[in-house]
This record gives sequence, structure tokens and C-alpha cells, in this order.
Amino acid sequence: MKIVKEAEVRKQEILVAARELFIKKGYEQTSINDILKIVGIAKGTFYYYFTSKREVLEAIILDIVEEGARKAEKILKDKSIPLVNRIMMAIMAQAPEFEGSDKIKEELHKVENAKLERLYLRAMLKRMTPVLQEPVLEGIDRDIFHMEYPTECIESILLLGHMMFDCDAFQWKMEDYPRKIQAFLCNAERMLGTKEGELKEFIQMFGQLE
Amino acid sequence: MKIVKEAEVRKQEILVAARELFIKKGYEQTSINDILKIVGIAKGTFYYYFTSKREVLEAIILDIVEEGARKAEKILKDKSIPLVNRIMMAIMAQAPEFEGSDKIKEELHKVENAKLERLYLRAMLKRMTPVLQEPVLEGIDRDIFHMEYPTECIESILLLGHMMFDCDAFQWKMEDYPRKIQAFLCNAERMLGTKEGELKEFIQMFGQLE
Repeated sequence: MKIVKEAEVRKQEILVAARELFIKKGYEQTSINDILKIVGIAKGTFYYYFTSKREVLEAIILDIVEEGARKAEKILKDKSIPLVNRIMMAIMAQAPEFEGSDKIKEELHKVENAKLERLYLRAMLKRMTPVLQEPVLEGIDRDIFHMEYPTECIESILLLGHMMFDCDAFQWKMEDYPRKIQAFLCNAERMLGTKEGELKEFIQMFGQLE
Repeated sequence: MKIVKEAEVRKQEILVAARELFIKKGYEQTSINDILKIVGIAKGTFYYYFTSKREVLEAIILDIVEEGARKAEKILKDKSIPLVNRIMMAIMAQAPEFEGSDKIKEELHKVENAKLERLYLRAMLKRMTPVLQEPVLEGIDRDIFHMEYPTECIESILLLGHMMFDCDAFQWKMEDYPRKIQAFLCNAERMLGTKEGELKEFIQMFGQLE
């Protein structure tokens, strides 16, 4: 039991060191040796946990998904926020925007790394759909939401949010974003079947960015 | 003028031959020499038009987007179909499903080729959004659709349709599809702001697949 725990700790040490290096030096510029030096392990130990540097990056991406999901779960527990706002805030919060994530995000979004982006998207959809299931079903129970396909509604909102705002599928200009965010929230509202304008205050927050 | 036309014809010959080879033999198994033999040109001539086999595949993908857009435009002209059905049929028809496309689609969807998929998605969104603009604005004029953000509504429907049904973002099982298609049409209806059930008959067609 202790050995299992230590292995998990060691693996985490590698991931933490690698993430820091990828952010500071860039993924391409980081070698496995750089990682070994910081963690203070031999090459053999590294290869016990990972087969390549790429696999480390993939594990980091899954960690990012997990961190995002936890942020979302935390927001969803805050009953002081109206349900529909809470859901939209949770969706926005789970996107990787934390400090230093820019470099990893950049890595994720390089066209050459479209494979990583796909990995992120699939992992995120799988992890986040059940997270949102509960509050959406609560909203249906409380007569705030009205829909026949709750799972598919969540899937659609998550997918649109990710493709539009995290992954630049449309290559919009900076100045387009306030309108695009408003349109996204308006479409989310319609899919959830809220009263028209349920998210109005929330939507206006983004209008002020214009 | 004549020379320009001939260059365009030659380029098309290369694309037609390459597409046939990619479908028959697979992309990896096709060499530039295979293409040269069929078109009957020298290597230098090939490199006048393309820098690599990959570039040929990229050009084929842009052709596929163009073919899809033309199919959609044709359907949209058929005024005998109710407007909202016509729009959804156009969206479905533009997805690459033509004969022999399976091999190219397979190539497009291999995780290693996520870059190509991104290329397809961006080109498709750019080409298809204006195609659908006209019928959607017509629907607003005729009081069939009600929305504040027509462009963003079209973008969202195109994006969802592609990610869900052409690119397997969710890795759904075969038996999930009838429900997923129905949910997609229902969400599209809501974003377009039609009368609830405007697409009912259309949606039921997919129910019968269950």
C-alpha cells in the first residue's frame, strides 16, 4: 500500500516539474533530462512511469481537465448564485485559464498538436457532462429549464463553448468576442429552455466589454 | 489566358488522380510516383503545382468542402421544401458522404491527422456560413425564425452538426445516433426560434431509425 502511494507521489512530482518546465522553456525546448534533474531521479525511473515526453504532456492535459472539472464543481455548490448563472459560470470556469496555462494552451492549440486538442476535448466532455447533469436536472425539477434532451443539451453547450472560445475554430477577431459570447449565452438559454432573458444580467456583463 | 486555363486543368487532373489513388490504395500507400504515372507528367511538373503529397490531400479536402457547399446551395434553391427543413437538409447534405469518401474521411479522422480535420472544419465554416445566411434571413423576414444573432446561430448549428456527426467528438455508440440526431434537430429548432415542433415531421424520420 505504501509503495503504491509513493509511486503516485513520484508520478505527480514528474508531472509538476514537467509542467513548470513546459511553461517556462516551452515543450519542444524541454528535454527528459531537464525533467530528471529537477525531480532528482534516474532515466529508468522516468520510463517506469512514462514512455515519452509526449505521454507526460498528455497526462498534464488530463490533469488540466480534472482541475477544470473541480473548479466547476466548486462553483456549482454555491447555492447563493442563481442556478442558470451558476451553470454558465461553471462552464466558463472549467476552461483552462489558470496562471501559466498560456504556454500549455499554446502547445495544445498549435495545429501540429491537433491530436492533443482532440484528447483534451474528449476528456473534457466525458468528465464535465456528468458534472452538469445534476444542476440541469435540478433546474428541470424546479421548472426553470424545459427540455427533452438534458444530456445532449449539456453536450452541445460544452462543445460550443470549447470550440468557440478555447480553441479558436472560427478565428474571430478580438473585437468580435463580446457579441460572440452574448450570442453563445443566448443560444445556451434557448437550449436549456429558460424564460427568455433568464441570463440577461449575466449576458449584459459581457456587453460592457464592448 | 490559355496557359492559365491549362494550368488549372492540369492541377485538377492531379487532384482527381490523387483522390482516386488515396481512396483505392490509402493515403500512406500512395506515392507521388503513383500519381505521376496516372496523370502522365514528370516529377518537376507535379512540384510546380504542389510542394508535397500532403498538400495534395489538403487541396482535396478544400475540394470536398466546395462540393458539399454546392450540394447545400442546390437544396436551398428547391422552394418546394419548407424553409426550415430545407436548411437542415442542406446542412446534412454538405457533410462529405459521397461515394468513395469513406477512405478520405478515415484519413481525415485519424487522430494523427487532426490537423487536416481542423483545416476541413475552418474551411467548411467559412464557406457554409454565408450559404445559410440567405435562407435564415428569409426565415426571419417571413416570421418563421426569431433570433437576435443569425450568423452565430448558423455557426453554432454547423459546428455542432460537424463535431457530433462527422467527427465523432463524443465517440457515441451506433445505437445512440437516432436520439442524438433528434436532440440536435430539437436544439437547432430552438436556436432558430421556430414554433416548437416546426421540425417535428423531419425529426420523426430519424426516430424511425431506432
